[in-house]
Parts: sequence; C-alpha cells; structure tokens
Amino acid sequence: MAPVETRLRVRYAETDQMGVVYHANYLIWMEVGRVEYWRASGLRYRDMEREDGILLVVAEVNCRYLSAAVYDEEVIVRTSVAEATPRMIRFDYELLAADDGRKLATGYTKHVFCGADRRPAKLPQKYHEKLGIKKNT
Amino acid sequence: MAPVETRLRVRYAETDQMGVVYHANYLIWMEVGRVEYWRASGLRYRDMEREDGILLVVAEVNCRYLSAAVYDEEVIVRTSVAEATPRMIRFDYELLAADDGRKLATGYTKHVFCGADRRPAKLPQKYHEKLGIKKNT
Amino acid sequence: MAPVETRLRVRYAETDQMGVVYHANYLIWMEVGRVEYWRASGLRYRDMEREDGILLVVAEVNCRYLSAAVYDEEVIVRTSVAEATPRMIRFDYELLAADDGRKLATGYTKHVFCGADRRPAKLPQKYHEKLGIKKNT
Amino acid sequence: MAPVETRLRVRYAETDQMGVVYHANYLIWMEVGRVEYWRASGLRYRDMEREDGILLVVAEVNCRYLSAAVYDEEVIVRTSVAEATPRMIRFDYELLAADDGRKLATGYTKHVFCGADRRPAKLPQKYHEKLGIKKNT
Repeated sequence: MAPVETRLRVRYAETDQMGVVYHANYLIWMEVGRVEYWRASGLRYRDMEREDGILLVVAEVNCRYLSAAVYDEEVIVRTSVAEATPRMIRFDYELLAADDGRKLATGYTKHVFCGADRRPAKLPQKYHEKLGIKKNT
Repeated sequence: MAPVETRLRVRYAETDQMGVVYHANYLIWMEVGRVEYWRASGLRYRDMEREDGILLVVAEVNCRYLSAAVYDEEVIVRTSVAEATPRMIRFDYELLAADDGRKLATGYTKHVFCGADRRPAKLPQKYHEKLGIKKNT
Repeated sequence: MAPVETRLRVRYAETDQMGVVYHANYLIWMEVGRVEYWRASGLRYRDMEREDGILLVVAEVNCRYLSAAVYDEEVIVRTSVAEATPRMIRFDYELLAADDGRKLATGYTKHVFCGADRRPAKLPQKYHEKLGIKKNT
Repeated sequence: MAPVETRLRVRYAETDQMGVVYHANYLIWMEVGRVEYWRASGLRYRDMEREDGILLVVAEVNCRYLSAAVYDEEVIVRTSVAEATPRMIRFDYELLAADDGRKLATGYTKHVFCGADRRPAKLPQKYHEKLGIKKNT
C-alpha cells in the first residue's frame, strides 16, 4: 500500500523551553500516523484490540531529528509498512512541515502482535491481506 | 491525618516554550501527591485497584496558579484529605518550591469511588478508617 | 462571538490504565480549543506571542468530568469567551463526544495577559475588538 | 565515569489502556537519567543552558523494549556516556525494574551541542574534562 499521510497541528503542550517541540512527542505523532494507516487500510486499531484482543506491543523505536517543529505549525506524518509478518510489523515514518516542506524527522517502530495477555500471538488470517502479509508466511 | 509531603524534580519534558512548566502538569503532580498520601496512610492505590477493583474516578479538578515552576527545581506537593465519605473523596493540594518556599499553586480534586465497570460503588469498609471516614456515614 | 468548535481524535497516548482518557489531557484539549477560538477571531496566538511579546499566562483552571472519553473517538471542543478585559480573559469550554453527543466535561480557564517578562501587562488596543473587549475598559 | 543510577516511580499518567507504561515515556525517563548524570558529573544542565547558552539538541533516539513497566513500580535508569566530543555526545541507557531487577529497556540518545540559536556550536573547554572529552579532539 502507498504511504498514508496524516496532518496534525503542533500543540503548545508539545513544546519545551527550547522553544520547539519536545522530542518524545514525535513518537506520539508516529502513533497518530500508524492509527490512520490502519484506518486507510480499512481496519480500526481500536476494534482489533477490543474484538480480537490483539495488541500491537512496541518492541523498538528509532527517530532521527532533522529540523525542529515549532508551535502551531502543521505537520504531515507519512506512514508506510516496511515489513509485516503474522508475528510482527514494522512501520516507517517521515515527518514533514506542511508549510515549507522541510523534513522534520524520519523513524521507524517495530511491533509484536500479542494477545490480551501481552504474550506474542499470531495475527488472525483476516487481517493479513489488508496489511500486505503474503500467504504462507 | 496530617498533610503528606512529596518531592519531585521538574522535568525538561514538563516545560513549554514560555520557559516554565506547562500548566496541565500540575494535575499530574497532584496525582503523584495523592498516591503518596495513600501510601502514607498504609494503603497502596495500585492494590486497591487490582485487588478490590476500586477505581478513583476524577469528578472535578481545580488549580490556581500563583508562581511558575521552572525546569530542574524541586517541588513539594502537600496533600490532604478535605472530605471523605464511602462514595467520594476530595483532596486539597499546595504546591511549593523547595528552594525558596514560594507557593506555586493550590488546588483540589474530587473523586468518586467506582467499581471495575466505572460505575459508582461504595468504598469497602476496610479502607474507611485509614482514610478518616467516620462510622455511620 | 459564537462558540467555536474544534474536533480532535483521542490518541492512544492520552489513555491510561483505566481504559479511558487520563484527566489531565482535557486541559490540553481546552488549549487546542482556545487556539482555534483565537484563529476563528482572525488572530494567531503564535504571532501575538512572537510579535507583541504578549503571553496568556494561566491563572486558574477548572474541569468537571461527566463522561469518560475513549481511545480513537472524536471529541468536539466548544470554546467561548466568558469574560475579557485588557488585563484578563476567561474561556468556557464544553467537551462533547462527536459520535453520540454525550457531554464529556465542562470547564473554564482564566488567563492574565503578560509581557515577555511574565509580568501582567495590558493587552494592546488592536486586539480588543476581535476579543470582544468593550471600549473604556 | 561509571554509569549513574536514578530512580523514579511510575505515574498513573504514564500508563495507557494496555495497562502498562506508554512507550514514549521511556524517552522522558532517559532525559531524567541524563540530567542526573550531568549532576553527578558536577554539572547542572540548567546552568549550562542559562549561563553559556549551550543547548543539547537531540539528534537521534533509539529504544528497545524488553519488559513492560507497570504503574507504581520503581524504575532505575542507568545512564552512561558512550561517546563525547566537543561537537556531540551520546548517552546509553538501561532501564531496570527496582523490585525484581528485570530489564525494561535499553536505548541511546545522540545530541549535538548548539548555541542559543540552535545551530551547532563547540562545547566550551571548561566542560570537557567533566564529560570525559579528551584533549585535542
């Protein structure tokens, strides 16, 4: 699937005393991008969690900061799936400033599919196609 | 019971671009104070939630900001119970700067005791004495 | 001016282990509503802060929680100005669930206009009309 | 210098609806660890920022999540400097549960020393020794 773009506006609460966005918030924006990727794939993460008891447990995050985001500017989160198996999924992200197109950050998150007990579990078959998981994996 | 004092140090993440602590963080500090009040009363909020399925659902918060807290300073949260019945509890807070004693804020939070379904429930008898709830209330 | 409505979607990061939104986040949503009220009035809070060195320092917040917001639902923040003088401004808020219209919370925030030194200052005349501040106040 | 250990207690605000700590908070804990590393080296990050206008701008973060931290448990942040030059510094972190010693996460953050204008700048000589930066680098 093509990358999915989401837009959000920087909140005052997300800035710090350097006058720019505090770096941990980029991870929250990645989460926003991920959820919208889900929705664009015809899935709703909330339902998967509620109805099938499938959790996407974060195993690793990485973010490289290229340019600081500032208060009240609009940010584009461009999310794509780099790898997906019935056991795990990796998302890649590009964060861009909507106004001038400068690249704010790049990063990725790796997740393990888990059951409600937070132990690794296989993602049910019905989700495979929508997430681009090939047969016989 | 006498007010319970807790200390915490202002985190960089808690500042905003005004160069001081973002106001919503005071509510989180009140929560820190509340949990330590619980502990000082010989209770552990975590256990109450886990073992008895009792939740402290926030019904109202109020905070008056008197002086801005700054990065890396130590803050004292002074917590007391203003009112407690088997149905609800109200905590009062004073936030002080440890270094120079200036008053940062005063506030209160009201909570309704609820069951695991988030519906109002009576607080079990065994907690009453420790929270100063009088008999026959 | 009529109340201004803003919409936002609940982030995973905003939930807590009760399975609903952590209460302090409502204050951040109020801030989102406030900024959009500003924008709807033809003002940009960022510019006022940058160009005129005017800060909106929070003096008091109050929030009554009526129904818990849940992950991934859409929230409407309805913001209005309850009172405004060249010295201070008070905003009132209603938070509603977009799907079923239930009222999540009501609240207000009071702010003092301050200069870049964080000391009280009079709001420049040019902002008065847009914020509904009457002449000779 | 030997790794520096800091302790903190998990706040309710830091949990999410999975019932464990939301992953972005680990980055905030790393920041807490870093500031205490600074202090243990005889430095105060706040003073460096205020007096010399030196900012530690985050260039990259990485975190691998090994075991979920839960509400109210005590966490140890073990911080060390992996690399330091007059231009940049890299911190490594281990996050451990104080009670049972299980490893929660490992990670690193890379920072560029910048001036008040957020442009790369050389770290003043007087800080070199305390941060273990060798001469003639």
